[in-house]
Amino acid sequence: MASGIWIIDQHTEHLEFHYRVEEVLYSGTTAYQRVEIVRAPALGKALFLDGRIQSAQVDEFIYHEALVHPALLTHPEPRRVLIMGGGEGATLREVLRHPSVELATMVDIDRELVELCRELLPEWHQGCFSHPRAQLHYGDARAYVEAAPEASYDVIISDLTEPVEGGPSVMLFTVEFYHQLARRLSDNGLFVAQAGSADPIYPDFVASLARTLQEVFPLVRVYWAFVYSFQLPWAFVIAAKSADPLALSPVDLETRYHSRGLQTRYYSARLHAAMFALPLYLEEALRERGRVISDRSAFVWQA
Amino acid sequence: MASGIWIIDQHTEHLEFHYRVEEVLYSGTTAYQRVEIVRAPALGKALFLDGRIQSAQVDEFIYHEALVHPALLTHPEPRRVLIMGGGEGATLREVLRHPSVELATMVDIDRELVELCRELLPEWHQGCFSHPRAQLHYGDARAYVEAAPEASYDVIISDLTEPVEGGPSVMLFTVEFYHQLARRLSDNGLFVAQAGSADPIYPDFVASLARTLQEVFPLVRVYWAFVYSFQLPWAFVIAAKSADPLALSPVDLETRYHSRGLQTRYYSARLHAAMFALPLYLEEALRERGRVISDRSAFVWQA
Amino acid sequence: MASGIWIIDQHTEHLEFHYRVEEVLYSGTTAYQRVEIVRAPALGKALFLDGRIQSAQVDEFIYHEALVHPALLTHPEPRRVLIMGGGEGATLREVLRHPSVELATMVDIDRELVELCRELLPEWHQGCFSHPRAQLHYGDARAYVEAAPEASYDVIISDLTEPVEGGPSVMLFTVEFYHQLARRLSDNGLFVAQAGSADPIYPDFVASLARTLQEVFPLVRVYWAFVYSFQLPWAFVIAAKSADPLALSPVDLETRYHSRGLQTRYYSARLHAAMFALPLYLEEALRERGRVISDRSAFVWQA
Amino acid sequence: MASGIWIIDQHTEHLEFHYRVEEVLYSGTTAYQRVEIVRAPALGKALFLDGRIQSAQVDEFIYHEALVHPALLTHPEPRRVLIMGGGEGATLREVLRHPSVELATMVDIDRELVELCRELLPEWHQGCFSHPRAQLHYGDARAYVEAAPEASYDVIISDLTEPVEGGPSVMLFTVEFYHQLARRLSDNGLFVAQAGSADPIYPDFVASLARTLQEVFPLVRVYWAFVYSFQLPWAFVIAAKSADPLALSPVDLETRYHSRGLQTRYYSARLHAAMFALPLYLEEALRERGRVISDRSAFVWQA
Repeated sequence: MASGIWIIDQHTEHLEFHYRVEEVLYSGTTAYQRVEIVRAPALGKALFLDGRIQSAQVDEFIYHEALVHPALLTHPEPRRVLIMGGGEGATLREVLRHPSVELATMVDIDRELVELCRELLPEWHQGCFSHPRAQLHYGDARAYVEAAPEASYDVIISDLTEPVEGGPSVMLFTVEFYHQLARRLSDNGLFVAQAGSADPIYPDFVASLARTLQEVFPLVRVYWAFVYSFQLPWAFVIAAKSADPLALSPVDLETRYHSRGLQTRYYSARLHAAMFALPLYLEEALRERGRVISDRSAFVWQA
Repeated sequence: MASGIWIIDQHTEHLEFHYRVEEVLYSGTTAYQRVEIVRAPALGKALFLDGRIQSAQVDEFIYHEALVHPALLTHPEPRRVLIMGGGEGATLREVLRHPSVELATMVDIDRELVELCRELLPEWHQGCFSHPRAQLHYGDARAYVEAAPEASYDVIISDLTEPVEGGPSVMLFTVEFYHQLARRLSDNGLFVAQAGSADPIYPDFVASLARTLQEVFPLVRVYWAFVYSFQLPWAFVIAAKSADPLALSPVDLETRYHSRGLQTRYYSARLHAAMFALPLYLEEALRERGRVISDRSAFVWQA
Repeated sequence: MASGIWIIDQHTEHLEFHYRVEEVLYSGTTAYQRVEIVRAPALGKALFLDGRIQSAQVDEFIYHEALVHPALLTHPEPRRVLIMGGGEGATLREVLRHPSVELATMVDIDRELVELCRELLPEWHQGCFSHPRAQLHYGDARAYVEAAPEASYDVIISDLTEPVEGGPSVMLFTVEFYHQLARRLSDNGLFVAQAGSADPIYPDFVASLARTLQEVFPLVRVYWAFVYSFQLPWAFVIAAKSADPLALSPVDLETRYHSRGLQTRYYSARLHAAMFALPLYLEEALRERGRVISDRSAFVWQA
Repeated sequence: MASGIWIIDQHTEHLEFHYRVEEVLYSGTTAYQRVEIVRAPALGKALFLDGRIQSAQVDEFIYHEALVHPALLTHPEPRRVLIMGGGEGATLREVLRHPSVELATMVDIDRELVELCRELLPEWHQGCFSHPRAQLHYGDARAYVEAAPEASYDVIISDLTEPVEGGPSVMLFTVEFYHQLARRLSDNGLFVAQAGSADPIYPDFVASLARTLQEVFPLVRVYWAFVYSFQLPWAFVIAAKSADPLALSPVDLETRYHSRGLQTRYYSARLHAAMFALPLYLEEALRERGRVISDRSAFVWQA
């Protein structure tokens, strides 16, 4: 029977996801966002920010493996990695699986959120916040990047929330910022971003993000994964100065995967290229619906 | 927007009440029932047992004043009072307002629930569990009553959950038990029970409860109140050996009310008689829909 | 199980009532309001206006009997009755039960709604729209009243929706209008209005409505009923030039009730006076929370 | 605001999807199942069977293209095609896009449902029920197949609901039936089935379906697609006597696609092979969680 405690993710005013809750681990507000951390039979533990599901224990591995490994495996020897956002620590966890990484720096604006995740979501970070090769910085990612020396990073990962009106990430998806960011990447460096929904109704964010990156990088590739707790296919974009994620043969990828001792549950060298094969509607949206996002004309995500 | 944490009271499979939750104070299971204690904007603090709302801070005063004062004011000098059930402590709180009460004993089967209420619902009990004239006993109310000497109590209050299948209160509404109970009342003693919904669709419980008490007591009177967080008009029954709650004049009632120093927010001497004036449909249901509840043919409440 | 079609009445942003729907009889928008007419196991047929339940087959008799009979029985021989609002036709139905009524005029602004009710809710109107003593007028009730000759009516009934922002009834609860209305009542005429919720949290509308009527009429009395599909105790106000609903003895009322051949399910001569006995919190709210509503300072009901 | 009419898909007792409804086009029960056809802002028109979403206008093309084209393009010249189930007519629509098809036969047990779809879901069938190369048969698909001559079909498509307890499709997924079915396929014939969810929590149905088909066919391949209105990644299985969907080069596939004049929105020759690249968790589930489904030990899908 329906009685009891539930958490609702109101996706739009026309669509709601209702999850029965076993335990409310945290409910409160940081300086930047409302935070709920619950345990739910359908999700395991789950993190909600401003009412929207961010991460669920049952399938966070899909999102985080899909975000991290295609870019890091494309790079022959990633040593310095920057993560923008990434509060739960699972992106950092996947980055640190690559033994060549000497320093993984995570810059998140919301210290209270990161501390909540550190305390309540150990299944995500698995202790990696204290890893000797990890560094945590609290602050605005754009300021942090712009203050960095040139060629500081081999891979930069954008694990940011969508640019909602008034939210802290609106200025982190613009062409001006990406020009700055590109200069902080090494010559064979890669940038990868979570790029929002890849559904046929509203693929506008990924289309514009890809279009914007094409202004800055010679090579831009969109790929996708199905993070089912997001209820939608999910897009990612890799932008590179030279390294092409589709240039490696499956055998080479497999070799890199094993030589780095990776262990995954979603990503595999066999799946790698397939993730870049997109449905026709998304190919069409990428051709037709994107625009260059700029500081003066930021992208604001429509709920 | 709807996002966030809610508690659902599934009234029937066709009707649900959804309350937004500010804070989950407790969610767990005792030996007898599932318990949720939440803070909700529409309710203040609220207690849910087995998924059904029991008590809300915004209007618990209505239920508890309506349960206690008509019977206690009808008695000229209630000294010994027994409460069966009453976990939150608010019935006890109202009983102790009557200065003639020398000992108020509360018998509740669910110690864990009472301890949760003691800790989390001080607005209900207001410290009365530790009152020098209060006594707390954990166990089955029927066994407790049957073990008591004759004429032990001036007023006995039945503040029990409805007799749901398999629940602990099924055998506390039978004619056999009421015969036993009547013997534990003093000569001008009164018995009062919360009697479930007074709505036109399913007034069966109050009808049968009144009918059953008529087998035992010479005087049985049904009254009602509007406990709006129950979403239904609510029935109560007073059964007496001799004292009639409608025998006192408004002036006498008013005098008793003031001489006992009572302070209420719902009940008044002016409202007293009006509470016993019932709508036609309920008068009709009382005439036609009741049956005698017995140990062999217990009443099982239909959700 | 919960799957299937439901209708939600979002009472406030913190409280929702969910009713399972068997059949959607109508869903659309008139010039004035959104209308849903459904059949629901918990309600029978039910009418929702702008998302809020207005009337349910299971208990519409409570509201309509409570609105009509106290005023009409107080009048010795009501002949001309005006109903402002009353779209479903059930107020008209109850008025026409009084055989002295020569003409009952109903003025509703929303012709489409009335026609929908006529077609889909025959259980409410029971054919009374075509009654030889009934008259239907579509338009603004204020304009209609102000155009009427003096002393046109013995009873005027305000069966209007609450004065929500921008809604059609905002200017129908002001002291200026009530002065006009009073002049259209005969010398022993009565005015009765549904007056919104009588709950302890938000009794502001009934308090201000009563306060406003006291500016105009020598006698104002508030009473209440529990229309349980509204989930709240409900207030009504009678205002009179001379006739006092509490002046008649129960015996006189009973005599009038029978001589007029009334048949009711909620109201009875025995219940009559009890409906005017109010809980303490409401007496207090009536003393303390009302203000005079005027054209320049209209009352806007807070959802 | 949430008020208004919604349809709920109770996925499990812990997870519900709530869709706001603009219009209820049909709500009723056929001899086989409960049917709701609604128009919803998040879905367009949508069909729900026994409370579960079957098909939504916004993305039915994903499911139907993914079900039909991989198998039909693998076959060099499909002429006779059998569809088991497929009530909405969209599978038939996609089959008829292949010009070599001389006869497409659809066998569905639920005539009332097909007639409802024919009337209310023209966007799905697009008139194909009346296509000169289409044939409609109402009855049990197993009986129909078993009565067919050997080698009757080039492609057989299983577009059936999951085998829920007591439902009509339970005996349509067993090894005994598949042996019968294989004999009705031509030598280079293919069988394709929608195979339920491909999520990491409950991939048991696709695992057992693939395992069962391996008992009968020399070649069995699982693939997947993201039908986002199902809220889950979705699995399909192709089983063949000889033709391998992965044997054709992308160029050959592209040539076939164009020579047949296909027009799609999800499927493309470029996406074809990628659909067969599975996530690691699903590869593992296919190895470890399947069992042979038989008449005596049918698979019953757990909600």
